[in-house]
Amino acid sequence: MSVQHTVNVELGARSYPIVIGQGLLGGGYDLASYVAGPDCLIVTNDTVAPLYIEALEASLRDRTSTSISLPDGEAHKTLSTMASILDALVTAGASRDTTVIALGGGVVGDIAGFAAASYMRGVDFVQVPTTLLAQVDSSVGGKTGVNHEQGKNLIGAFHQPGFVCIDTDTLSTLPDRELKAGLAEVIKYGAIADIAFFEWLERNMDALAARDPAALAHAIRRSCELKAAVVAADERERGRRAILNFGHTFGHAIERCQGYGQWLHGEAVAAGMVMAATLSDIDAADVARIRDLVTRAGLPVAPPAIGASKLRQAMALDKKVQRKQLRFVLLPKLGEAIVTSEYSEAKLDRLLAAAA
Amino acid sequence: MSVQHTVNVELGARSYPIVIGQGLLGGGYDLASYVAGPDCLIVTNDTVAPLYIEALEASLRDRTSTSISLPDGEAHKTLSTMASILDALVTAGASRDTTVIALGGGVVGDIAGFAAASYMRGVDFVQVPTTLLAQVDSSVGGKTGVNHEQGKNLIGAFHQPGFVCIDTDTLSTLPDRELKAGLAEVIKYGAIADIAFFEWLERNMDALAARDPAALAHAIRRSCELKAAVVAADERERGRRAILNFGHTFGHAIERCQGYGQWLHGEAVAAGMVMAATLSDIDAADVARIRDLVTRAGLPVAPPAIGASKLRQAMALDKKVQRKQLRFVLLPKLGEAIVTSEYSEAKLDRLLAAAA
Repeated sequence: MSVQHTVNVELGARSYPIVIGQGLLGGGYDLASYVAGPDCLIVTNDTVAPLYIEALEASLRDRTSTSISLPDGEAHKTLSTMASILDALVTAGASRDTTVIALGGGVVGDIAGFAAASYMRGVDFVQVPTTLLAQVDSSVGGKTGVNHEQGKNLIGAFHQPGFVCIDTDTLSTLPDRELKAGLAEVIKYGAIADIAFFEWLERNMDALAARDPAALAHAIRRSCELKAAVVAADERERGRRAILNFGHTFGHAIERCQGYGQWLHGEAVAAGMVMAATLSDIDAADVARIRDLVTRAGLPVAPPAIGASKLRQAMALDKKVQRKQLRFVLLPKLGEAIVTSEYSEAKLDRLLAAAA
Repeated sequence: MSVQHTVNVELGARSYPIVIGQGLLGGGYDLASYVAGPDCLIVTNDTVAPLYIEALEASLRDRTSTSISLPDGEAHKTLSTMASILDALVTAGASRDTTVIALGGGVVGDIAGFAAASYMRGVDFVQVPTTLLAQVDSSVGGKTGVNHEQGKNLIGAFHQPGFVCIDTDTLSTLPDRELKAGLAEVIKYGAIADIAFFEWLERNMDALAARDPAALAHAIRRSCELKAAVVAADERERGRRAILNFGHTFGHAIERCQGYGQWLHGEAVAAGMVMAATLSDIDAADVARIRDLVTRAGLPVAPPAIGASKLRQAMALDKKVQRKQLRFVLLPKLGEAIVTSEYSEAKLDRLLAAAA
């Protein structure tokens, strides 16, 4: 059996472990120990189900499980898809001691988590992320939700999982484009919180893009550690947690303007990070370092041609807005981030003009 | 200015006051002090809006407010009505510092609260209940949600208000049937938690039914005190809070089988309380005392003819079910309640047969 790492998310009574390793599904890990009641509902999608649902079910031993498979993709991350999960819970006769298990990427995890938060005002939830993006970011920290036509993740809940099971073997079936999208969030952690990790990424980006297992395992573990620390300090994003949104104010607006699913979330965040770095008060050389990493990860460094005014309008519904004032996550220096409403309007105009 | 009473709900960082008095709307109370940001959305219904929205707006001083009016009634307490509130928030350009204010009865409060819990993963929420039922029960304690076709309040969130403003003058426009429905929950508090209050109700039920202002004010205050104490001890219903569901296992099933809105919630709970008292191991004389109070309040003491098996089936989705086993709130003695899976199946059969 290969090495397993555990990262704990410290949230008092809501603390939980993230277990990272190979071969966890299908017998390598006792998932049933995180299903307190007699039954669970597996939420997955049409791409992931044929690959991993049998292995997951085998890990659940004597627990009764039913499953619902959602159509794949960000375009389906809606309130009506969430309602279909609630219907499945009702049909299965689920009760307060039922556990919802998300098997898939960020979209599956976000919708399933919101359904788990809302069914009977909250049932247990387990994350089994199968994409790099979900493993390093969305499965950890309890943000759940769906998109509104007018804005990304506008509807949702904070609902922590009781367990996150990251089987790195699942990355073997991940399409290249999705792997790259996940690397955007990995770069983010280095840029906002850990210059040493950023430098490690500069040395190892080629290995990561080539799917070197040891490099991926380290990147996942370090990303989870960095995220867990930020979440533990500010679970409900009253302050510091917002730094995890570096690149996301632009990124969410890009996703929304293009139509959800045109660019992957990680692609939009990649371009958004380069924009946010440019808006920051750091050396051009440091902006270039971020741009280079993004480029080496095979990700876009600029927004698509969607129109500057449309992009600005979409940003107005960002969740960081306070008293009608936009706020951005900016870098006072590479490896550190702040949330601020102080930025150069002229610079912002020039950045948005690139989308014209 | 008349007397105001304040009951505090003690929940640490989520503590909040319930202020009870006459003339609070329209200038008697500074509601704006509970709207932290620059703007709010008032959620109300077509019956209440013409009566009180102007007075409420006047209490909000310089805050920008928009409003959405829902169709009146339990039949509209659905996920799609909740989505219409989210749309209104988006249209108003609401942000995380927007406050949602519920002006109306339990249905308005429950849906608006769930929208407030879900918009941007949670914004501030203020309750201005205008029915007796909402004033003594649903506006306090943070339970929000909507019905599923298959079960009452199956979808929702715990989301505490920051303030509950009970202007007892609003009862002057409340139809008799709704006033009586509210008395069901008042009787509940006496039966489950306070024998002295139960005896006070026995002495004062005629005054309450005749809308005596002093009697109503006392009943509201004592109900809020009793509910606040239970909620403070068990906010998320891990245990004791479930006693507030006395009569509700039957009541919710009655509502669901008849179609939401045929019987008012309080009417279904009234019949449900008499059924639950009968299922309890107490003297027939004590069951009779509950039945008498319910009768004097002008409320039903037995279920409608909806079919025993249909009623039993509807109870299977009750939120108190554990390991597929029904649990009831029963009275070990009048004035005390427990949650238990131990009850006489034969007695339950006879009770349900009354619905045949």
